[in-house]
Amino acid sequence: MVSDMPFPYKKMTEEDFAYLRSVTAPERVWVGDEIAREYYHDEMPEYGVFPPELYVEVLDKQEVSTIMKYAWEQNIPVVVRGAGTGLAGGANCKYGGILLSVMKMNKMISLDKANMTMTVQPGMLLTEVAAAAAAEGLFYPPDPGEKTASIGGNVITNAGGMRAVRYGLTRDFVRCIEAVLPDGEIVQFSSNVVKNTTGYDVKDLVIGSEGTLCILTEVTLKLMPAPKFTRTLVMPFENLESCIDMVPRLLQMAAVPTAIEFLERELIDIVERNLHKLLPVKEGDAVLIVMYDAGSEQELLSACTEASDAALEAGAIDVYIADTPERIASVWSVRSAILEGMKAESVAQEECDVVVPRAKIAEYVRLAKGIGAKYGIRVEPCGHAGDGNIHTEMLRDASMSDEDWIKGTRACLTELYGVSKRFGGQLSGEHGIGNGRLEYLKPFVGDRMYKLYQSIKLAFDEKLILNPGKIITFEE
Amino acid sequence: MVSDMPFPYKKMTEEDFAYLRSVTAPERVWVGDEIAREYYHDEMPEYGVFPPELYVEVLDKQEVSTIMKYAWEQNIPVVVRGAGTGLAGGANCKYGGILLSVMKMNKMISLDKANMTMTVQPGMLLTEVAAAAAAEGLFYPPDPGEKTASIGGNVITNAGGMRAVRYGLTRDFVRCIEAVLPDGEIVQFSSNVVKNTTGYDVKDLVIGSEGTLCILTEVTLKLMPAPKFTRTLVMPFENLESCIDMVPRLLQMAAVPTAIEFLERELIDIVERNLHKLLPVKEGDAVLIVMYDAGSEQELLSACTEASDAALEAGAIDVYIADTPERIASVWSVRSAILEGMKAESVAQEECDVVVPRAKIAEYVRLAKGIGAKYGIRVEPCGHAGDGNIHTEMLRDASMSDEDWIKGTRACLTELYGVSKRFGGQLSGEHGIGNGRLEYLKPFVGDRMYKLYQSIKLAFDEKLILNPGKIITFEE
Repeated sequence: MVSDMPFPYKKMTEEDFAYLRSVTAPERVWVGDEIAREYYHDEMPEYGVFPPELYVEVLDKQEVSTIMKYAWEQNIPVVVRGAGTGLAGGANCKYGGILLSVMKMNKMISLDKANMTMTVQPGMLLTEVAAAAAAEGLFYPPDPGEKTASIGGNVITNAGGMRAVRYGLTRDFVRCIEAVLPDGEIVQFSSNVVKNTTGYDVKDLVIGSEGTLCILTEVTLKLMPAPKFTRTLVMPFENLESCIDMVPRLLQMAAVPTAIEFLERELIDIVERNLHKLLPVKEGDAVLIVMYDAGSEQELLSACTEASDAALEAGAIDVYIADTPERIASVWSVRSAILEGMKAESVAQEECDVVVPRAKIAEYVRLAKGIGAKYGIRVEPCGHAGDGNIHTEMLRDASMSDEDWIKGTRACLTELYGVSKRFGGQLSGEHGIGNGRLEYLKPFVGDRMYKLYQSIKLAFDEKLILNPGKIITFEE
Repeated sequence: MVSDMPFPYKKMTEEDFAYLRSVTAPERVWVGDEIAREYYHDEMPEYGVFPPELYVEVLDKQEVSTIMKYAWEQNIPVVVRGAGTGLAGGANCKYGGILLSVMKMNKMISLDKANMTMTVQPGMLLTEVAAAAAAEGLFYPPDPGEKTASIGGNVITNAGGMRAVRYGLTRDFVRCIEAVLPDGEIVQFSSNVVKNTTGYDVKDLVIGSEGTLCILTEVTLKLMPAPKFTRTLVMPFENLESCIDMVPRLLQMAAVPTAIEFLERELIDIVERNLHKLLPVKEGDAVLIVMYDAGSEQELLSACTEASDAALEAGAIDVYIADTPERIASVWSVRSAILEGMKAESVAQEECDVVVPRAKIAEYVRLAKGIGAKYGIRVEPCGHAGDGNIHTEMLRDASMSDEDWIKGTRACLTELYGVSKRFGGQLSGEHGIGNGRLEYLKPFVGDRMYKLYQSIKLAFDEKLILNPGKIITFEE
């Protein structure tokens, strides 16, 4: 199947431009140099800066379908762009062609209170989705760090976030997807039902496929009753090992924590030093921040008491309880400021977001720092202790040469992925593969699995016109 | 791709038999008439009775791999059998070939308390999995009606069950799958991690694929802390509509019910009349049975009180609270005995298990009964009110001719699926497609989606040797 490849793609002509203007609107089409430079890349220009040949803002699924039918016939690559907040180089036009923005498809179609679901267009922002649910006393739990992301982007990358410990990932909140296939056909994956064994589970395959299999045009999301009470505990420990050992204990309790994050003291210092945000706990080499939500005050109190007692018994130096909105916000502001703090203390950053079995977090962190040290790169892992997803930041010192940085980060990444694999982990827990991690995927998953990924891609898109060159490639 | 079909398959020879004995063991291989008749079908002989050419009981993944490599080369179809409790005609050898039983691969490989997971072979029974978790104070929540099912069968069909309202489906408890592909390669889908955006989500695609994409050889399951307290409420209502209207109210409360089942009075009467199992509530045309689990007695009490108060406010005639293990078991024994009761009052049964948006349950039930009446068939819907999955039983009266029964059920099914589709529902919520519902799938999902299913099947199994003719077919 791989032999008759469609490369090279058609170079777009004035005729193509005219056709696309005619099926959308001239004022929503830009070509060549008219296209803003920010659309050449996502949040990570390091992972690719590529000019689209044409940029179009679509209004509805019919436009998407018409464009795809044309692109399919004409062999023109199409890349979909949401808010452009991806961190894997997933939304750039590596092979030129059409950049299709869904940011004008940003409406809520309906909110169904009886079934507790909300149907939205992909360009609606995550914050808008959360706010629309809250306005009806309901709750959309997924909470990835990047609040200005589009909901379509969240679904197509299966965005995670801190609250995944209790509530799960974006995937767990997608009931139904309407999408346009690469040949322009409009299909629906599942419907507004709670379970489904009708044919293959294409819905879950499409979630996290980074725009390589289809274009989302509508998504139905599951909502929940909003939790009424919340509290955050800060637990400092003497060292990282005892801090991480606390995680399984917390997860074995009856009340499931909403979030469990860990921070080492040196990261807290970075934030305090550079951004003057202070954590209300001064001791301990490693700190666990634990959030609980509950439907009643009684339930919340009993969860927090059990967790505090267990932490002190397990060697926590102290347990600080943030129980007002201000105190809670203040604790979490330190966690949120880490990346900003690290940026203040380095001239460039590279990162990976491996996920390892939870019991392996401390060991991974120690090894990661050692690996960085070998290449003269400061490595600062932190993040989601509750699900083993470690954001491993590499910091470039001002004195480091370009060559050392590039070689060093590459060597670091290779070793870090090796450690993750050895620990039974995965290459990425949240950010995906995109264009930025292509070279690491095949060695990680193996040749046969990679071939299966290729076959799956071809099952949807045998002409390879949808977001080509992302996740997998077909070049030998 | 569909043009160069591998049909007809190779008819197996003495040489094939000898080879398969040599790579397994002669005492684990049966051929031709040596094969027990029960292996010609699953729990539903109505959906196909087909003799395998060879039946083999495998011991490990290497044997599975070796057999598949041979079958792939020789173009011999292979069907995997677990406990044979499927209800869709999924595990029969429609095209002869090899029936591969995994029931001797029935060990627990490991139980990881820190990560709260259990790794098992596919032939372990669901009851054994639940018991092994319980022995460590942990909990494996999925609880489909058929307790003698194999865990591999549960995973490959994405089994549901009553506790899905709170805990989710089998899918939600599968961390990782080791499988053999049709060409004999051993692969792993994800690993023992909580989240993963590394390549396509093949794990979820494979779950529910009814043995058509790969053969499970090992599964890692997520476990939970065992809930310590449980109670069951029985809420009788004047009529079905007010009974079903209660469901969204329950789901909007802070405490999520573990199970919400509905029964109409005529079904309760059937059970009481035939099996002498009595529900402790005599009034009301429709009854809701609601289960709550909790980590503390306080939490349980507050959930039950809130639910009871709301039910009485919404017109429940009464709320009976089962709060001892005996009383709880007694209530649920009525629910479990429905099928047995219906069997006692009919000479044959046909069923469908559509899933509809929860708010549509009452309307579906009314329409379903009317549809049955048109064809002289008694239709008794009941089941999972909490997730809209309605087991719609059709009962054959002794006086009905074969022709009327066959024509009538077919006409009923066509109409019932039509209603489900119109309501935004799905064809099957739990039982799957198998061989029994083939003809209904394509009209339900549409030509383009069906073609996508075919492409996905070919991406895994271009020779169509793994459980051929199930879920989808390739004949024109």
